[in-house]
Amino acid sequence: MAKHVYFFGGGKTEGKAEMKELLGGKGANLAEMSNLGMPVPAGFTITTNACDLFYRNRKEWPKGLMDQVRANLKKLESVMGAKLGDPENTLLVSVRSGAAASMPGMMDTVLNLGLNEAVVEGLAERTGNERFAWDAYRRFIQMFGDVVMNVSHGDFEHIMEEKKQRVKARVDTDLSTEDLKDIVRKYKAVYRKRTKESFPDDPLEQLLKSINAVFESWNNDRAITYRRLNDIKGLLGTAVNVQAMVFGNMGLTSGTGVCFSRNPSTGENRFYGEYLMNAQGEDVVAGIRTPQPIKTLSKKNRRIYTELVSIKNRLEKHYRDMQDLEFTIQEGKLYILQTRAGKRTAAAALKIGVDMVKERLITKEEALMRIEPEQLDHLLHPAFDPGDEKKAVRITKGLPASPGAATGRIVFNAHDAEAWASRGEKVILTRIETSPEDISGMNVAAGILTSRGGMTSHAAVVARGMGRCCVAGAGDLVIDYKTKKVKAGTTVLKEGDYVSINGSTGNIYAGRIKTVEAKLSGDFLTLMKWADATRRLGVRTNADTPGDSQTAVKFGAEGIGLCRTEHMFFEGDRITAVRKMILADDTASREAALRELLPLQRKDFEGIFRAMKNRPVTIRLIDPPLHEFVPHDEPSQKEMAKVLKVPLQKIKAKVAELHEFNPMLGHRGCRLGITYPEIIRMQARAIIEAAINVKRMRIRVQPEIMIPLVGEYGEISFCKQVIKETINEVFKKKKTKVAYLVGTMIEVPRAALIADEIAKEAEFFSFGTNDLTQMTCGFSRDDAGKFLKEYVEKGIFEKDPFQVLDQEGVGQLIEMGIKKGRSTRKNLKIGICGEHGGEPGSVEFCHRAGMDYVSCSPFRVPIARLAAAQSVIKEKRMMKTGRKMFRPV
Amino acid sequence: MAKHVYFFGGGKTEGKAEMKELLGGKGANLAEMSNLGMPVPAGFTITTNACDLFYRNRKEWPKGLMDQVRANLKKLESVMGAKLGDPENTLLVSVRSGAAASMPGMMDTVLNLGLNEAVVEGLAERTGNERFAWDAYRRFIQMFGDVVMNVSHGDFEHIMEEKKQRVKARVDTDLSTEDLKDIVRKYKAVYRKRTKESFPDDPLEQLLKSINAVFESWNNDRAITYRRLNDIKGLLGTAVNVQAMVFGNMGLTSGTGVCFSRNPSTGENRFYGEYLMNAQGEDVVAGIRTPQPIKTLSKKNRRIYTELVSIKNRLEKHYRDMQDLEFTIQEGKLYILQTRAGKRTAAAALKIGVDMVKERLITKEEALMRIEPEQLDHLLHPAFDPGDEKKAVRITKGLPASPGAATGRIVFNAHDAEAWASRGEKVILTRIETSPEDISGMNVAAGILTSRGGMTSHAAVVARGMGRCCVAGAGDLVIDYKTKKVKAGTTVLKEGDYVSINGSTGNIYAGRIKTVEAKLSGDFLTLMKWADATRRLGVRTNADTPGDSQTAVKFGAEGIGLCRTEHMFFEGDRITAVRKMILADDTASREAALRELLPLQRKDFEGIFRAMKNRPVTIRLIDPPLHEFVPHDEPSQKEMAKVLKVPLQKIKAKVAELHEFNPMLGHRGCRLGITYPEIIRMQARAIIEAAINVKRMRIRVQPEIMIPLVGEYGEISFCKQVIKETINEVFKKKKTKVAYLVGTMIEVPRAALIADEIAKEAEFFSFGTNDLTQMTCGFSRDDAGKFLKEYVEKGIFEKDPFQVLDQEGVGQLIEMGIKKGRSTRKNLKIGICGEHGGEPGSVEFCHRAGMDYVSCSPFRVPIARLAAAQSVIKEKRMMKTGRKMFRPV
Repeated sequence: MAKHVYFFGGGKTEGKAEMKELLGGKGANLAEMSNLGMPVPAGFTITTNACDLFYRNRKEWPKGLMDQVRANLKKLESVMGAKLGDPENTLLVSVRSGAAASMPGMMDTVLNLGLNEAVVEGLAERTGNERFAWDAYRRFIQMFGDVVMNVSHGDFEHIMEEKKQRVKARVDTDLSTEDLKDIVRKYKAVYRKRTKESFPDDPLEQLLKSINAVFESWNNDRAITYRRLNDIKGLLGTAVNVQAMVFGNMGLTSGTGVCFSRNPSTGENRFYGEYLMNAQGEDVVAGIRTPQPIKTLSKKNRRIYTELVSIKNRLEKHYRDMQDLEFTIQEGKLYILQTRAGKRTAAAALKIGVDMVKERLITKEEALMRIEPEQLDHLLHPAFDPGDEKKAVRITKGLPASPGAATGRIVFNAHDAEAWASRGEKVILTRIETSPEDISGMNVAAGILTSRGGMTSHAAVVARGMGRCCVAGAGDLVIDYKTKKVKAGTTVLKEGDYVSINGSTGNIYAGRIKTVEAKLSGDFLTLMKWADATRRLGVRTNADTPGDSQTAVKFGAEGIGLCRTEHMFFEGDRITAVRKMILADDTASREAALRELLPLQRKDFEGIFRAMKNRPVTIRLIDPPLHEFVPHDEPSQKEMAKVLKVPLQKIKAKVAELHEFNPMLGHRGCRLGITYPEIIRMQARAIIEAAINVKRMRIRVQPEIMIPLVGEYGEISFCKQVIKETINEVFKKKKTKVAYLVGTMIEVPRAALIADEIAKEAEFFSFGTNDLTQMTCGFSRDDAGKFLKEYVEKGIFEKDPFQVLDQEGVGQLIEMGIKKGRSTRKNLKIGICGEHGGEPGSVEFCHRAGMDYVSCSPFRVPIARLAAAQSVIKEKRMMKTGRKMFRPV
Repeated sequence: MAKHVYFFGGGKTEGKAEMKELLGGKGANLAEMSNLGMPVPAGFTITTNACDLFYRNRKEWPKGLMDQVRANLKKLESVMGAKLGDPENTLLVSVRSGAAASMPGMMDTVLNLGLNEAVVEGLAERTGNERFAWDAYRRFIQMFGDVVMNVSHGDFEHIMEEKKQRVKARVDTDLSTEDLKDIVRKYKAVYRKRTKESFPDDPLEQLLKSINAVFESWNNDRAITYRRLNDIKGLLGTAVNVQAMVFGNMGLTSGTGVCFSRNPSTGENRFYGEYLMNAQGEDVVAGIRTPQPIKTLSKKNRRIYTELVSIKNRLEKHYRDMQDLEFTIQEGKLYILQTRAGKRTAAAALKIGVDMVKERLITKEEALMRIEPEQLDHLLHPAFDPGDEKKAVRITKGLPASPGAATGRIVFNAHDAEAWASRGEKVILTRIETSPEDISGMNVAAGILTSRGGMTSHAAVVARGMGRCCVAGAGDLVIDYKTKKVKAGTTVLKEGDYVSINGSTGNIYAGRIKTVEAKLSGDFLTLMKWADATRRLGVRTNADTPGDSQTAVKFGAEGIGLCRTEHMFFEGDRITAVRKMILADDTASREAALRELLPLQRKDFEGIFRAMKNRPVTIRLIDPPLHEFVPHDEPSQKEMAKVLKVPLQKIKAKVAELHEFNPMLGHRGCRLGITYPEIIRMQARAIIEAAINVKRMRIRVQPEIMIPLVGEYGEISFCKQVIKETINEVFKKKKTKVAYLVGTMIEVPRAALIADEIAKEAEFFSFGTNDLTQMTCGFSRDDAGKFLKEYVEKGIFEKDPFQVLDQEGVGQLIEMGIKKGRSTRKNLKIGICGEHGGEPGSVEFCHRAGMDYVSCSPFRVPIARLAAAQSVIKEKRMMKTGRKMFRPV
C-alpha cells in the first residue's frame, strides 16, 4: 500500500525538507521545522502523488488514502489531546494547499474546520470567549462555502456589510456575539439557498470535502494561469496540509504575522515584517487591516520577539537562504506556521546573494544561480527623473510595495488593463485591493496601485514577483469602480488619465513624469563580474546608433552583433536619396543616388566604431524590401513627387511594381544586392572608409560585414566578391588596410541545411532567429498574433516561439547549421542576433549548442551575461551528476 | 606528354566509339566507322581535354598540342596523298566541333579550309571545274569570316544578293565563275574593312585560327543556353575534328544528304532522309534549298543507294539504336561524314523502343531507359478537333516537321515571342528560317512555322527535340519582318493574329481551332505496362473533380494523392454559403452556414469516389486563408452585401480584418481548423457520409483525410480528435463504418524536423513540396519571379526550385522527415503531392528517398510512371557497378 500521508509534530515527524516534491514546499518545511524542534502545530500532509492519482482516477481518492487520513487524524488527536468534533475538548484544523513550487494565493485554504453548533458552544465555554468562538464559526462557514461549495464570496460579504451598517459597526471587531450569531444563521441560510443542502455539521464530512476542494484547486483557472506565467512545469499536483489550528484572534495576547529574515525589497540584512494583534492570518495577507511593523513587537512582547528572531536566524542558517515566515501567537505562545525561501525584488536578490557570499553562507556559484536573469530587467529600467518628479503634482502617498517607477493611463480592472495595453498603451492598474482574479491585468500593467493592504498584501507580493512597480495601501484614494474614477483630496482622475507611481517611495502623482535610466549598484557590478568570470559565451548587443552602443557598453556588451543599416536610411533627408535610388531607371542614376548616401552612411559607421572602441562590430547590409522605403498613401506620394520632381504617376507605378504578396519571402536581403550590386558596393565602401578613418584615431576597429538572407552558396559568393572588390579598391586608393570579416545571417532554413557549403565563403554565422522562426514554423510575425495567442492558450505551443526560442524545431536547424558550418571551417565564429539572444532559456541553448556569442538589445545584456554564467554552472553540475543536460522545451 | 590528338582513317585509326567523352560524339563515331571499314574521309580529332586545358590556361593551347596537330596533319596528307596549300595537289579540310553530347548547330564549323588564290587556281585546273573551285573559295571566305573573325553574315549575304540581282540570277547556281570571282574580291574587301587585316593566305594559319574558333564556340551564348535548356552538364569542352574535305557540289554525280535508319517522326522502321545533288551539306541543313526524299536516290543511283542502305543497316545493328547519318557523294563515290543516335519524336521513341525489343535488338529495360519521360508529354497533349479542323480556313501547307497541333498568336521574332508569352499568350513563332539565335523564342512558343527548310532544317530538328509542334518550309508564305506581317495568297496575318498549325500534317490555318485529347498508341500502352512492371513507386494524381479523376485513371493513376477541397468552395452558389460562414459572428451562425455547404461537399466527394472506384483518395481539408474567399474590390463587395443582405460596412470590416501581410505564413491550413473546428467537422462529415453512400454501390472507398500545414504535434492531435469524434458520430448514426486514414501534409519545415512527433498521430505523410520549397528557401512563389529568373540566369540556382525539386536543401528535409516519421511509425505511408511529383528528376529522388508514391497532375501521370521505372533500373545498374547512386543536384 502506497504511503499517502506523512505526519509532523509531537516528536512523530515523518517528512523532511528534501521531500518537497512529495510533500510540497509547505509540508516539507513544516516537517523540517518540527524536526528542528521548533514550535509548529502538529498535523499531517497528504502527498502530491495522491493529488496526481486523484486526477488520474477521475477525481476519486486513491486506494488507502481514506484509511491513512483517518489514522493520521487519530494520531493528531492523540498528540494534541483533543478530538475533532468533540464539544468538550475540540480539535480544530486548517486545510491548506502546498505545491512543490510556491503559488501564493492561487489555491484554496479552509480554516477553523471542525466547528458546528455543538462544538462552537463547547469552544466558547472552554475558551471563555464566546465572541471568538462565534467569529471563528462565521469565518469557517464563509470560507468553506466559498472554497468548497462555490458560494459567492459576495453573498457572505453582503450579509456582513448589512449587519455592520445595521449596528453601525465600523470594523468587524465592533460586532457583538449576538451579531455574529445572527450572521451565522444568515450565512447558513444563504448556503442552503445556493447549494440546495444544509451546511454540514459532521466534522469528518467537512474535512473530506475540504481536502477534495484543495485537490480541485490545483487545476482552477488562476492556478493554471499562474503556472503558465511563472513557467512552473512538471509538478504532480498539490499536497494538502491538515494542521491543528492555533488562533491569533483569541484576544489581545494573541496575534499573527508574516516576516522575512532580510528585507525582501532592498535585501538589507535586517529583520523585516509585520503583524496584527487579535487577528487571523488572512487578515494580514488580504490586506483588510493595515498591520504593524515587526519591530514594534519587541516593545509589545519582548519574549516572543526574541524567540521569533532566534527562530528566523536558525532557519536562515539552516536553509542558507532568506526566509519568509508565517507565525501566530496564541494567548502568549508563539507558533510557526510556515517557512519558505522568500520572494524578493531583483535588487534584494542581488544584495542578499552578494552579502551571503561575503558572510560565507553560500558560494559565488550559488549566488549566481539564485537570481533569475529575467529579474535583472527590473534593475535596468528607468526611474523618474528626479527634477521632473520634484515638480510633479503629488496627490497622495502609499506603501512602497515594489520598487521602480511607472507612468501610464489609469484603469480600474483587469479587463480594461488588457484592452488599453493591447492598443499599446502603458497602464497603471488601480484597485481597492487585488485578488488572484486580477493576475492577467497586473501582468500587462506598467504599475499597480491599491488603496488597501500592506507590504505583504496580494498586490505587493505579486508585483514584486513580476517586477512590476507597485504602491499599495494608499488609504486616501477613493476608488469608484462603477464610474471608473479615483479621488484623492480634490483631484479626480478618470479612466485613461495619466498617473505616475514611485514604487520605491510610495509617492503617487497626477500626470506623466519623465524617467531616467537606472543606476547600477555595486552589488550588481560584483555579481556581473562573477558572471563574466564564469561564462564562456560572449555577449554582444544589437545597436544601430552610437547612443545605443554606449548604453550597451555600459551594460557590458563586448561588441555589436547586429547593426541594422537600413534604419539609417530613414533618418532626416536621407530617405530622399534612398527614394531617388529606388526610382532610378538604370544603374548609372542608381549609382548617382547612392553617391549621396555614401558620406552619410560612412559618418554613421564612424560614430558607431568610435563608440564601440576596439570591440567587433557586425554590420548587416540592407535587408528590407525596397517598398518599405516608399510611401503607400497618396498625400505622401504627392509630397515625394514634389521633392523628387518626378510625376506622381511614376511613383505610383514604382510602388505598384514593388508590391509583394509575401514580402517576408520576397525581394529582400542579399537578393537586393544581387539585383543591384551597386547598393552593397556603396555600403561596403562606407563601412571600410569609416573603419580606415577611425583606425587613424588609434582605435583598432573590427568590422564584420554581414550578408542577410543567404540561402544558397552562389548568393554569398556573389555578394562577397562584390564586397571584396570594392574594399580592395578602397585599400588601394587609401593606401592602407583594415582587418575585416565577411559573414552571413543564417535565417533561411535552407541556409542551415547547407551550412557546410555556405561556410566555404562565410567567415562567421549569425543566426537570425526571428526570421528563422518565421520560416521554419511558417508563422508571419505580423500576422501570427491572430492565432498564436490561441495556440499558447490551447497549449498547442507552450510558448510564443518569437519570445522563447523553439528549441525543438528551430533549435534543430541551429544545431545542424553549427555542426555543418564548423565541418567546413573549424574556427567559424558563430552567434545569434535574433531577439532570443537576450532570453535566458534561449541563451542556455546557445551555450549548449556551442555558439561563440549571443547578441541582444542593450538592456538585456546583463540578463544574457548572467544566463550565460548559469549555463556553465548548470553544465558543470550535470557533468558532476553524470546526467545529460536537461533540455527545457 | 599528354595525347591531345587522335587520328582516324587510312587504317591508322586510334579512337573508338567508347571514347566519346574524350573525342566527342562525332569524333568517336568517325573513328568507330573507320574501324568498321566504312568510307569515312580521313582526319584527326583534337580531344575535349585539350579544349578544357585551353580554357584553364587563359585560352592558350596546352603544351604539345601544336606539335601533335602538325604531326597528324602530315599523317593526313600522307594518307590522302595530297598536301594542304599545295596548288598542284591540294588537300582541303573541314574543321568541326563535336562535344560528348549532341548540340546541333550550336558550335562552329569551317569548311573548304586550305584555299587561297594559288590553291583555288590549282583546284580549278585539277578538277577541271573552275566554277566549283571559286564557289568553294567564296564559301570558305564567308564561313571563315563569319565563324573565325566575327564578320557579320549579313555583310556577305548583302554582296551575294546584290550580285544575284545585278545578273538576274534566281538561285546561287545561276552565278557564273566570273560572278563568283567578283564576289570573292568583294568578300575579301569587306573582310579587310571589318577585321583590319587581310584574309589569310597561309593554310596553316587558317587551320590554327579555325581550331581556336571552335574552342571558343564552346562558350558562346547559344551553346551555353542550349546546355542549360537541355540540362547538359559536366562536360570538359568540345572536341575539334579536322577532316579531309569531300565535295557534294562537284557536279551532277555529286551530292549530299542526311538520313535516318528509321523514321524519326513516327518511328516506322523505314529508311528515311533527304538529299540534294550538287550541293554541300550546309545547303541541306540550313534549309536554303528544299531537298529530295531519300527514296528517289535509288532511281538516280542504285549502287550508291544500295551501299547507303547497307551501311545504315550495319550501323543500326552495331550501335543498337536508330542512326542519323550524314553522307556526301563526290563524283559517284559515297562518303559517310557522321553517324549518331538520331533525335526522335516521343512517338518515334516509343515505337522504335517497342519495335527493337520485338526485334530482340534491345531489352525492355533498355527500351524504358531510352525514352526521356518528359518527352511523353508531347504524346499526351491535345491535337486539333477533327471536325473543327475540317471547318477551319486552311491558308497553305508546309512540311510536317514536328507532330502535334498548336493555336496561338503569330509573332515574327524571338523577342516578340518572349514578350507575348510573358503576358500568358500562346504564340506561334513564324520565321523565314530559324537559326540558333531563335532558341529562346522557340522555347516559349507553342508552335514554330517556317517558310524555308526541310525536315532536317534547324527549325525542324530543334522543334522535335523540344517537343514543339512545327511546320517547316511552307514556301507560299511571304514573311515581312519589318511590317510584322505574313501573306499567304490573299490572306494577310499581322502580329498578334491567331494562326493554327498542325505539325503532323503540315497544314496551316488562319484563326483558332479547338483541340482534343491525344489518343494513346498501343506502343505507349506496351511501354507503360513494362514501366509498371518495373517501378516500385506508386503513382497517384492531383485531381479535384470527377472529370480530372477519370482522365488521370485513363493515364494510369492509382489513386488521388491530393484533392483540394477549397476549389469546390468557389463553384456556383457555394461561395455565398462560404461567405456567410466567414461573416458569421459566432459559432452557431458559422455552423448554420456550414450546414448549407455540407450536402454540396458530400456530393462532390461522392462523384470523385465513384470516379476513382476502389483506389485511395486523399482529401485535403481547407487550406487557403479565408480572405481568398471574399471580394477585394468595392463593386464585388457591394454585390456580396446585396446577396447576403448585410451592410457593406460589415463586409469591408471583415475584409480588412482578414488582411494579412504574409498570407503564405498566415492564418490558413490546420490553423483555421483549430480556430474554427466546425469547418473541419463539416468536411470530415461530408467525406465520411459520401464514403458510406458510395460504399453502398459496392465500391471499396478508401478515403484518406489530410490535414494541411501541420508544424507541431498539438496541431495534428487537435484536428485528428475533432475528425475522429465527428466520424464516430456519423458511424453511430448511419450504423455502418468505412475504413479511413488521417494524415498530414509535410510542408512546413518544422514538420519535417519533428516528423517523429507528428507521426505519433499521422497515419500518412504527403510532402507538399510547393510550400515546403517556399518556406525552406524563403521564396514566395507569387513574388520570386522578380529575382528567381535572374538567379537561374546568373547561375546562382541551377534550376527554378519550383519546377525541379531542390534536392540539396528541401531534399534534406524530406529525407529527414521520412526517416523520423518511419522511426515512430514503421508502416507510415509516404508520398509527395507538390508539382514536383511529375518531374522526372524529382520522381527519381522520391524513389531513392523511399516514398511510397508520387502524385502529379493527370497529364504527367505517364511521365511519373516511366520516371519511376527508370529509377529502379538506374538503381539496379548502380548496384551492379557497386557505385553509390549519383545524386543530380
